[in-house]
Amino acid sequence: MSKRHPNILVYHHEADTYANFLREHGYISIQTASSKEEALSHLQGTEVILGWKFPTALLTRPEASSVRWIQSTGAGINDLVSDPDVPESITITRITDQFGGLISEYVFAFLLYITKGLPNMLEAQKRSHWDPFKVDTLNNKIIGVAGLGSIGSEVVRKARAFDMKVHGLSFSGANAELVDEHYTAEEWPLFVKDLDYLVLTLPLTPATQYAVNKDILSLMKPEAALVNVGRGQLIAEADLVEVMRERRLQAAILDVFEQEPLDPEHPFWSLPNVYVTPHLSGQSHAADVGRFFLKNLRLYEQGERLQGIVNRERGY
Amino acid sequence: MSKRHPNILVYHHEADTYANFLREHGYISIQTASSKEEALSHLQGTEVILGWKFPTALLTRPEASSVRWIQSTGAGINDLVSDPDVPESITITRITDQFGGLISEYVFAFLLYITKGLPNMLEAQKRSHWDPFKVDTLNNKIIGVAGLGSIGSEVVRKARAFDMKVHGLSFSGANAELVDEHYTAEEWPLFVKDLDYLVLTLPLTPATQYAVNKDILSLMKPEAALVNVGRGQLIAEADLVEVMRERRLQAAILDVFEQEPLDPEHPFWSLPNVYVTPHLSGQSHAADVGRFFLKNLRLYEQGERLQGIVNRERGY
Repeated sequence: MSKRHPNILVYHHEADTYANFLREHGYISIQTASSKEEALSHLQGTEVILGWKFPTALLTRPEASSVRWIQSTGAGINDLVSDPDVPESITITRITDQFGGLISEYVFAFLLYITKGLPNMLEAQKRSHWDPFKVDTLNNKIIGVAGLGSIGSEVVRKARAFDMKVHGLSFSGANAELVDEHYTAEEWPLFVKDLDYLVLTLPLTPATQYAVNKDILSLMKPEAALVNVGRGQLIAEADLVEVMRERRLQAAILDVFEQEPLDPEHPFWSLPNVYVTPHLSGQSHAADVGRFFLKNLRLYEQGERLQGIVNRERGY
Repeated sequence: MSKRHPNILVYHHEADTYANFLREHGYISIQTASSKEEALSHLQGTEVILGWKFPTALLTRPEASSVRWIQSTGAGINDLVSDPDVPESITITRITDQFGGLISEYVFAFLLYITKGLPNMLEAQKRSHWDPFKVDTLNNKIIGVAGLGSIGSEVVRKARAFDMKVHGLSFSGANAELVDEHYTAEEWPLFVKDLDYLVLTLPLTPATQYAVNKDILSLMKPEAALVNVGRGQLIAEADLVEVMRERRLQAAILDVFEQEPLDPEHPFWSLPNVYVTPHLSGQSHAADVGRFFLKNLRLYEQGERLQGIVNRERGY
């Protein structure tokens, strides 16, 4: 006889999509919620939560006593990790190995856009102006990838296809062998000074918060470009505003911000060398996340180690 | 004693750059010209011509009797090949293996620009509008590369890094092993019908001229995009204008045209789904072309087979 499946609560604005996916795969005891009240009403007896921005205050209540595991539908879980409302007894897992493809496409879309001079080309077309200007290349440029997890590794892989020189910085030293030059967390100044492109894919932890600040930015080459697809707080935004106003970097391409959505009055929106996108570089696709969760559910039911377990001390 | 170096005539708008490069490498008998008159005045005794759009009518004159070899500074030599003024006794060589990197960067700059929705992102930023729309991906899309020479092969290599499915069409069958599905010149209809992206890197020959015409375009999926980095006459432009006017393709990205520069009145300039760029995807860099020519010069002096010899019957 097969073991009983755990009771699952899906908390998500697309909760029904996930619930249907799970039902199609034989899981029946599924509840869905997209508000705190709904979540509370279904919490009693819940063992597993699949969700995004779950109202963690609920986890301190007696109704949550049966919760054992929270699977985040995203890769970044800094909010959960530092949240004192999430009891130590609850395992947190995050999605890994799914965003590298999408995020690296975003990175190269913008690196090519600025490096190949697409703004010039598009502008010339508007004027029906035939002007074969000299076009730059990624070939032999130095890209620095801060964070060499599954996302950073995928940026590295694509950088190789463009015959770039690849430098990397990682805290754990993992995947150091992927890059031509590897730097540690103590070596930010050395790491950034030769880069043509700096791409941030780091998780947000106390050690990475505001790692890119005035001191680091001022060491970068003025023709360099910065891309942040990690978390907004990796960068001291006020410092970056000043640097971009003074045109001390060629471009900043920002998909994540200290506060999201970005305030409509924030100076980033209108700085001509800053590209603002609304945290869309690594969107969760329900089918992919669903498959990841399904695999983890099976491991959970067999009492095996889950994929993407968050180490709260390390912070990701 | 070393063999005497051949007399070289450089015909180019950057003739001095090439001439200086050659002098630095020990070649002294160099003449430069950038007009027909200048070229004629230096033709007597010339054995080798390095140039672009050399006025071939001069080659029928007695002053040209010593010319043995023309090295083109570009990859496309359809004008020279079909030119009856170039005697059969003159060897024509073209640059190979140098444009793949630059041209494939151009291709992916535009594929990512349209696929990742950069126009939407840039437009939303203008309005300080936070709108995380669903972003598409190159992953698993089908790219069809027509022409699998050094340029097409490099497009294929980058497509692999984006985890695309890669189909290819080539006349010679060369490099067929690089692609997932290979088609021959007789199979254009089969080749194009499943593609998400069609990239033309073919040389212009009687067999490829207008290969992409109304019949072929009408077989393509309406969400597909077409990129031409080969030669303008690969496409029947009047047919393409009609297709793009009727929005029967998502986008056409054109770096080459039947007539260059493109007429300022040409409808391509103002069609919203057509991207016009002024033949800049594969620019010759004097240093790279210089090195290619230098290697060929040494082979020439040693009586060995040159790199990039054009087969006039084949047409490239």
